[in-house]
Amino acid sequence: MPKRRVTLAQVAEEAGVSSTTASFVLSGRTDMRISVDAQRRVREAADRLRYRPNLTARGLRTNVTHTLGLVSDTIATSQFTGEIIQGAVDEATAHQRMLFVGETQGNLDLESRLIQELLDRQVDGFVYAVMGPRPCAPPDLLRTRPTVLLQCIADSFDVPNVMPDDVGAGREAALALMAAGHREGVYAVGAHHRSERLPEGIPAGRARMRGVEEVLDEYGVRLAGTFQCRWEPAESYEAVSSLLDSGIRPRALICANDRVAMGAYQALQGRGLRIPEDTSVVSFDDSDLAVWLRPALSSVDLPYYEMGRLAVRLLVDPDRKAGVHQVPMRMVARDSVAPPAGRTDPAATRSGGRA
Amino acid sequence: MPKRRVTLAQVAEEAGVSSTTASFVLSGRTDMRISVDAQRRVREAADRLRYRPNLTARGLRTNVTHTLGLVSDTIATSQFTGEIIQGAVDEATAHQRMLFVGETQGNLDLESRLIQELLDRQVDGFVYAVMGPRPCAPPDLLRTRPTVLLQCIADSFDVPNVMPDDVGAGREAALALMAAGHREGVYAVGAHHRSERLPEGIPAGRARMRGVEEVLDEYGVRLAGTFQCRWEPAESYEAVSSLLDSGIRPRALICANDRVAMGAYQALQGRGLRIPEDTSVVSFDDSDLAVWLRPALSSVDLPYYEMGRLAVRLLVDPDRKAGVHQVPMRMVARDSVAPPAGRTDPAATRSGGRA
Repeated sequence: MPKRRVTLAQVAEEAGVSSTTASFVLSGRTDMRISVDAQRRVREAADRLRYRPNLTARGLRTNVTHTLGLVSDTIATSQFTGEIIQGAVDEATAHQRMLFVGETQGNLDLESRLIQELLDRQVDGFVYAVMGPRPCAPPDLLRTRPTVLLQCIADSFDVPNVMPDDVGAGREAALALMAAGHREGVYAVGAHHRSERLPEGIPAGRARMRGVEEVLDEYGVRLAGTFQCRWEPAESYEAVSSLLDSGIRPRALICANDRVAMGAYQALQGRGLRIPEDTSVVSFDDSDLAVWLRPALSSVDLPYYEMGRLAVRLLVDPDRKAGVHQVPMRMVARDSVAPPAGRTDPAATRSGGRA
Repeated sequence: MPKRRVTLAQVAEEAGVSSTTASFVLSGRTDMRISVDAQRRVREAADRLRYRPNLTARGLRTNVTHTLGLVSDTIATSQFTGEIIQGAVDEATAHQRMLFVGETQGNLDLESRLIQELLDRQVDGFVYAVMGPRPCAPPDLLRTRPTVLLQCIADSFDVPNVMPDDVGAGREAALALMAAGHREGVYAVGAHHRSERLPEGIPAGRARMRGVEEVLDEYGVRLAGTFQCRWEPAESYEAVSSLLDSGIRPRALICANDRVAMGAYQALQGRGLRIPEDTSVVSFDDSDLAVWLRPALSSVDLPYYEMGRLAVRLLVDPDRKAGVHQVPMRMVARDSVAPPAGRTDPAATRSGGRA
């Protein structure tokens, strides 16, 4: 790189336009009419001369740095939500934006320091993301720049908020079982994730169970039982084992996520029950686990990648709308759903999923 | 934020020092001697006045922006290697650096565009990371800034290179079995990951198997068999199933990673074999899967988080040394290793792991 930097004036001269015109074309400004031909000539000249803008200097002049900040609590740590970063990075790249990624581990001091550091670098806007949809209080510092919230339930912020459609997801899971003909012996494992600390459960659990119950009501079906437990394999294993130990053979399990389903598989298969012949299992997340389990698990996808993309797409869109932008969640049907044993209704033999 | 920005001159006045001194203290420069007391006064004045440097302007003056770029092929997508980003972000934050994260999906055009964009934003340096240790050719553009490679085997780049100690990892896995008393019926599943396309296997597989074989040689033990397959549950399930179908009951399996171990568990347990009573299993990665499997899996950790931290630590260290910086990999002993059935040597009853 010993060569001298090509200047904007050289590009303008090569293209036969004024420096102002060249600057407007190359910085993507749209507030001055420039002919398509002149735009083409400027771009070709810039390519030919290998012109690179000094974005730091431009940022000082225009207050636009083409950089964005993604601030989250713990999404990169999490196996699944790393996909949010992936989606955000891809979308930023597609819009010629560079993305700063910072994590706070939920530490509010670190959070405000991080945001201040990004403001010091004049980022054009923020995606503020939390792990799992939950109430959160984005810091007031964010009000100084365009911001999109991700999975963050915050009434006081009148900005776009990207959320997974967990009620729709619950409907998808229940519909897969209804379509296979299940009408009894259906249990929910993990469910609302109620605990002493959160007697109402967590937002994702509540929303999904609302969707499940909507569909069951439509079919006149009642859940045979609900196990509130942490959404981890060991807890689910204990819950399903206790059910089996009491002599009950469930016809179908709606598991709160793929990890819960893994624990359910271990409990069922450890006692010689076959999936899906004896017990059908559906789940949420559509993580890699769903593919790895035997039989492969029918699971409603949690579109983290799409959510990351949508958040950045909204952030760079000057016409973005405030309010909730829901991302649909779809059943990915695999091999863990079958009609209830002893039932051979031919209308009900297709395993989970949409027609 | 309607208040006017506090200037450096105001901080200097408040602290009773010259603007130059205040500037040196607040930009962390060390090439001018400033008394500890003056440093303290400047920092306190900056805090009191809520002074924020204009880093974009400073970057133009000093050519130091306190920003770093992490460029990788696909590490954020990957469930496990998201931890590299986590470690890099945490270490950058600890050093008051902000981290740009960009991914190329292995697309070379995108890669050079991304690096050029980061250079346009005057990043101080780069971490260039690839998914899994492998030969790679970092672009020459990186030679214009301090760079640290991560998992990237590139002779032509005389810079620090952070690598996992895969040979040591192979030794750890084999030692866990030797310590439990296994001397026969030990199989490797996944192994070098040899294929038609890569007849030698992949670097991590070759290095780990070298470590395994070093230890077996020391004990005068030979592998009973080696299954080359993709490191995924379905492939491992097939390999172990074919072994069992041939009537062989392996005493111990060394699985190439936790996903391979998951497939092995499915094959063994699906045929009624008990882990570890009938067959011991050790593995590599120490991912969440190792905890989720029943029994919990003894697995050699792959310290992605530490690797991400080390890469950034080296990048901000002016005295960094070129060459390979190996990160050790340690056995995390759980419940999947026991002495071989029918053997009761009391010296060999401790399950895998170090003394």
